[in-house]
Amino acid sequence: MLAAAACGENVLTVGEDVRSGAVAVPVGRRLRAADVGGLAALGITRVGVVARPRIAILSTGDEVVPASAVPGPAQVRDVNAGTIAAVVSQAGGVPVPRGIAPDDAAALEGALREALADADAVVLSAGSSVSVRDLTADVVARLGAPGVLVHGLAIKPGKPTVLAVCDGTPVVGLPGNPASALVVAWRIVAPLVRLLGGERIDDEGFDARETSAVLDVPVQSRPGREDFVACALARDGEGVLHATPVFGSSNLIFTLVRADALIAVPLDRSGLTAGERVRVILP
Amino acid sequence: MLAAAACGENVLTVGEDVRSGAVAVPVGRRLRAADVGGLAALGITRVGVVARPRIAILSTGDEVVPASAVPGPAQVRDVNAGTIAAVVSQAGGVPVPRGIAPDDAAALEGALREALADADAVVLSAGSSVSVRDLTADVVARLGAPGVLVHGLAIKPGKPTVLAVCDGTPVVGLPGNPASALVVAWRIVAPLVRLLGGERIDDEGFDARETSAVLDVPVQSRPGREDFVACALARDGEGVLHATPVFGSSNLIFTLVRADALIAVPLDRSGLTAGERVRVILP
Repeated sequence: MLAAAACGENVLTVGEDVRSGAVAVPVGRRLRAADVGGLAALGITRVGVVARPRIAILSTGDEVVPASAVPGPAQVRDVNAGTIAAVVSQAGGVPVPRGIAPDDAAALEGALREALADADAVVLSAGSSVSVRDLTADVVARLGAPGVLVHGLAIKPGKPTVLAVCDGTPVVGLPGNPASALVVAWRIVAPLVRLLGGERIDDEGFDARETSAVLDVPVQSRPGREDFVACALARDGEGVLHATPVFGSSNLIFTLVRADALIAVPLDRSGLTAGERVRVILP
Repeated sequence: MLAAAACGENVLTVGEDVRSGAVAVPVGRRLRAADVGGLAALGITRVGVVARPRIAILSTGDEVVPASAVPGPAQVRDVNAGTIAAVVSQAGGVPVPRGIAPDDAAALEGALREALADADAVVLSAGSSVSVRDLTADVVARLGAPGVLVHGLAIKPGKPTVLAVCDGTPVVGLPGNPASALVVAWRIVAPLVRLLGGERIDDEGFDARETSAVLDVPVQSRPGREDFVACALARDGEGVLHATPVFGSSNLIFTLVRADALIAVPLDRSGLTAGERVRVILP
């Protein structure tokens, strides 16, 4: 593929090592402006790159109507289709909208099989009642081996997440609650899209998507799960970054609209104290 | 414009305040996943957004040949067209390639007038000899009022930069040296593209494109100019970020290929000492 096309978008991942003299652009690196320049200096205007992964996005629930519709009694607008598409795009994937499936095993299975046939991964957001969650897991289990790997994560929000692989294609079942679904999309779907896009994810290296900040007020938590708390960020006069939790229900998408980032509360902590340096995720 | 389209790309800027109940997405904010979700929850699937600015990119110099060509004696490949296009894309603009113009006043003026006619800004990279720099400034001065505003910046690399406005259209003349041109593109062209794209640039707010790190070795500088030094970044066992200058000539694009970021040495410092906390620009 053309390096020029890759540099124009600046998000494609190099699919093969490019080594020439002083320049080494290793496989798995997302092409950056300097890389394009180093290659151009050597006359290398074409490099192999990894195609953007296609990510099918399916919302489920008898009560869910498109965001453009006026919800009737006991109906809610589909928020997750839009937020997941945005997360997928930002991670370098191509969102493939698959609409809304009802809470019916046969219909859901049909919709998922169609989605699987034309995508590198499927992300669905499920209703949040226990019976509906079980329905999703049951249907996903039938789609191919090995099926459901994980049913429930030790994180908040996002506990009722389903992780599966069906005949080689990853399937992620997100909670139905929009704020929970978005947090899990940031934490699970975005890295999955980058991985499918060929990006080498290096635990040792620098990651601009994380930083640390001084916490301004205490945060409560419960040991045994990782908590993600919406926060605003600001620098003080000395340039020190401060994180302040955003007031509002953690269940509401509107809380995330007002937030800059997420504070990560480690699994083994019962809370964070004011003044301590905390880990901050920049979605 | 469709919010769905905006969210798919996730880089368009809201062109008008959207306020409804608890949700306020202010004018000048680049739409984020959570914003798209908050708007969808309220049934707002269309919002006014600012079109991506079109940025014409023109290389100049009798000695410059396209990157795909084999340079003859005293010729060099065009590196800047590719790196500037990547910086423009990443900042949310549309790069408009305008090729290579010779070191001839009439030809350069013609190429610049054509570029100006079809772009929201023009970025040119000029030859680095003094006579050629003067040619560029002379030609830019003829293109419209007020013309050249700045001829030379107190930064290194990047001193021979020209900043102009010609009949309302910004024109940036970058140094011809590829490493210098890329550093100035990061520091000047990227914020200009974001501004033309409608983004409110807030000095007080949090900027994920900057951070701080502990410097591992001393860095020499000279008071009276801001220095940008290519560096690698890594976290130590305690999660503290360290910056190490990248060994290699600051004039070489290959030095930037090996770098993660730039250390900013303030105007009034004669150098930075090992162990001090320094400002780091993440391009």
